[in-house]
Amino acid sequence: MSSRGAESQLEDDMEKTTRRRFLRTAGAGGIGVAAAGVAAPAIAQANPEVKWRCTASWPKSLDTLYGAPEYLAKRLAEITEGKFQIQVFAAGEIVPGLQVLDAVQNGTVECGHTAPYYFYGKDPTFTFGSDLPFGMNTRMKNAYFFHGGGLELFNEFLKDYKCYGVPTGATTCQMGGWFRKEIKTVEDLKGLKFRLGGFAGLIMQKLGVIPQQIAAGDIYPALEKGTIDAAEWVGPYDDEKLGFVKVARYYYYPGWWEPGSNPWMLVNLDKWNSIPKHYQAAFHAAAQEAGMWMTAKYDAQNPHAIKRLAGAGAQLKPFPAEVMDASWKAANELYGEINAKNAWFKKVYDHFTAFRADQYLWLQVADYTMDSYMIRYRNAKT
Amino acid sequence: MSSRGAESQLEDDMEKTTRRRFLRTAGAGGIGVAAAGVAAPAIAQANPEVKWRCTASWPKSLDTLYGAPEYLAKRLAEITEGKFQIQVFAAGEIVPGLQVLDAVQNGTVECGHTAPYYFYGKDPTFTFGSDLPFGMNTRMKNAYFFHGGGLELFNEFLKDYKCYGVPTGATTCQMGGWFRKEIKTVEDLKGLKFRLGGFAGLIMQKLGVIPQQIAAGDIYPALEKGTIDAAEWVGPYDDEKLGFVKVARYYYYPGWWEPGSNPWMLVNLDKWNSIPKHYQAAFHAAAQEAGMWMTAKYDAQNPHAIKRLAGAGAQLKPFPAEVMDASWKAANELYGEINAKNAWFKKVYDHFTAFRADQYLWLQVADYTMDSYMIRYRNAKT
Repeated sequence: MSSRGAESQLEDDMEKTTRRRFLRTAGAGGIGVAAAGVAAPAIAQANPEVKWRCTASWPKSLDTLYGAPEYLAKRLAEITEGKFQIQVFAAGEIVPGLQVLDAVQNGTVECGHTAPYYFYGKDPTFTFGSDLPFGMNTRMKNAYFFHGGGLELFNEFLKDYKCYGVPTGATTCQMGGWFRKEIKTVEDLKGLKFRLGGFAGLIMQKLGVIPQQIAAGDIYPALEKGTIDAAEWVGPYDDEKLGFVKVARYYYYPGWWEPGSNPWMLVNLDKWNSIPKHYQAAFHAAAQEAGMWMTAKYDAQNPHAIKRLAGAGAQLKPFPAEVMDASWKAANELYGEINAKNAWFKKVYDHFTAFRADQYLWLQVADYTMDSYMIRYRNAKT
Repeated sequence: MSSRGAESQLEDDMEKTTRRRFLRTAGAGGIGVAAAGVAAPAIAQANPEVKWRCTASWPKSLDTLYGAPEYLAKRLAEITEGKFQIQVFAAGEIVPGLQVLDAVQNGTVECGHTAPYYFYGKDPTFTFGSDLPFGMNTRMKNAYFFHGGGLELFNEFLKDYKCYGVPTGATTCQMGGWFRKEIKTVEDLKGLKFRLGGFAGLIMQKLGVIPQQIAAGDIYPALEKGTIDAAEWVGPYDDEKLGFVKVARYYYYPGWWEPGSNPWMLVNLDKWNSIPKHYQAAFHAAAQEAGMWMTAKYDAQNPHAIKRLAGAGAQLKPFPAEVMDASWKAANELYGEINAKNAWFKKVYDHFTAFRADQYLWLQVADYTMDSYMIRYRNAKT
């Protein structure tokens, strides 16, 4: 299909829908200045050498998710004239991608970049770091973490795991994944072997899905051989690198389990407390700049990737209304069950969902109305 | 009206809508370290004292817009252990709010925090710093500036004004303003004396509106006396502080002239080039962290403010479709006229609008579909 043809096809699909609607720690050791004979202010200004290792949950090829801790590390080195260095390692170089929390908690590394929901087996409360299925979108999550008490609350939870953490941007709303067969009814989900990340597998089980936990690099061969029937990763730009379009053409949306999923930088709490306050300040600023950079990269690259994927044969499909509604119902049932037995989950759930209600009330006024107008105009090509 | 009653009224309004569519500069002076007898690395690490003044276009009471340069200044001071200080001044303390560009350009101050579109009279190209009417939303603007070449292009333009600049977050989609009378048709706009910011006045003129340029503090009395018929500022949280609800009850949306308007930190180019690279790095990181903080503050506070405003009697109204369509048409006519005679405008316009087309294509797939579902669920109160 020509590029133009692919775009037209995509637009047709969309129109229909719109109608339907960084080993060792030097720690704080080695102040790199000849202290004797220097006036007091010079010592106060000195930057101690700190070298940290960061183990990521991602392969280097994902220059979005892996790019975020790299961006943070580069900026931090620039600000401190190379004195505070974080070296980032890909998944598997130090520990496997799904063991980042353990590695940070036990001090194997000083920090790690990961999706907190990978650790929902330790406690489902971890999902709130990434996102609650049917949670909040990208902007709402920043509002929740930085002005809604979310960051403080989640860090209170993280203390039991000897971690301090900050979210670093979001993947934006994810896609629902690649399916070898069309999903027309809830019935079509029964017995489906579906690779998906995190906590959402517990919801999918209620719908008859058999959730599969498979690391990024192993998904493609499993889908190709038919060992699994479907797989989700993130969205067009990342998914394209993993090659799914070649083996499963139906590309569903939206990924309701991750409306605005946040990767986090987790730092061993003792290591965090060992660095000077001005290094903590630099870390915070660089982390949020890196987050903005990553989110914006997704937004800049996804449009091009979705067009290329459509050109390569991807068939874009919204999840049927009955699948969305059954998923919503199953999600809320699960939340009720966990709230009844997990005090941490309930505490964060109540806090998170109260914030969510107000967010969607306001969203529909200005931003959603404006976005709707612009989408309509664009589809009408006037 | 009780708070609950106000929320119900607001929800009723929204449901209808959803149904209808779905120093003075120390410069680089005074390196604060006794250089003689100190090993070379100590000098490289030393932080020189830099004190800048920042004049803002905002009164202190607007803790969102004014809060952003304050947040930036605080973080920069923390990172540099108090060596790089920026003191922020409110509009009128050094120069009036609409003279920030001149003050930065001629070196009266080292930097200023403002909305570039205030200076569209010098060159309409300034509007692209803030936003193009019917431009792009908050996330799209970050994507455009940081991954679409927008930042480099706008800074090329700014060189003629001896400035270097960075956007620091966005106001999010603004509201359309406060009107003393209902706007039911395009005809109702004829002769309307409407206070509105920036470049959009040129578009409104084509619709018969008589645009008024009035500084923030003077808008309320003008509206109260009936000297003007309508006024827009930003959105619920900021507008509430200015008290408009007491004198004009119809609150229209969306503010199509500012779908994701960015305030900028503008720095005198010579001053920017005089500071060490690691200060520039710290500045960049702190600026983007401040931007995230400001955008998130709008998102966190606007829901509460809109409920309070509804409780105080605000009547929320979407602009009628014919007003939106006439505005869109008038905007594009104006862009055609300016493109024919202003090479800078045309260059940025073509670059900006090409990026925009892809953004709205992609938006409607995952994020918009998910937001739509969540809004629908909320309204159904299931």
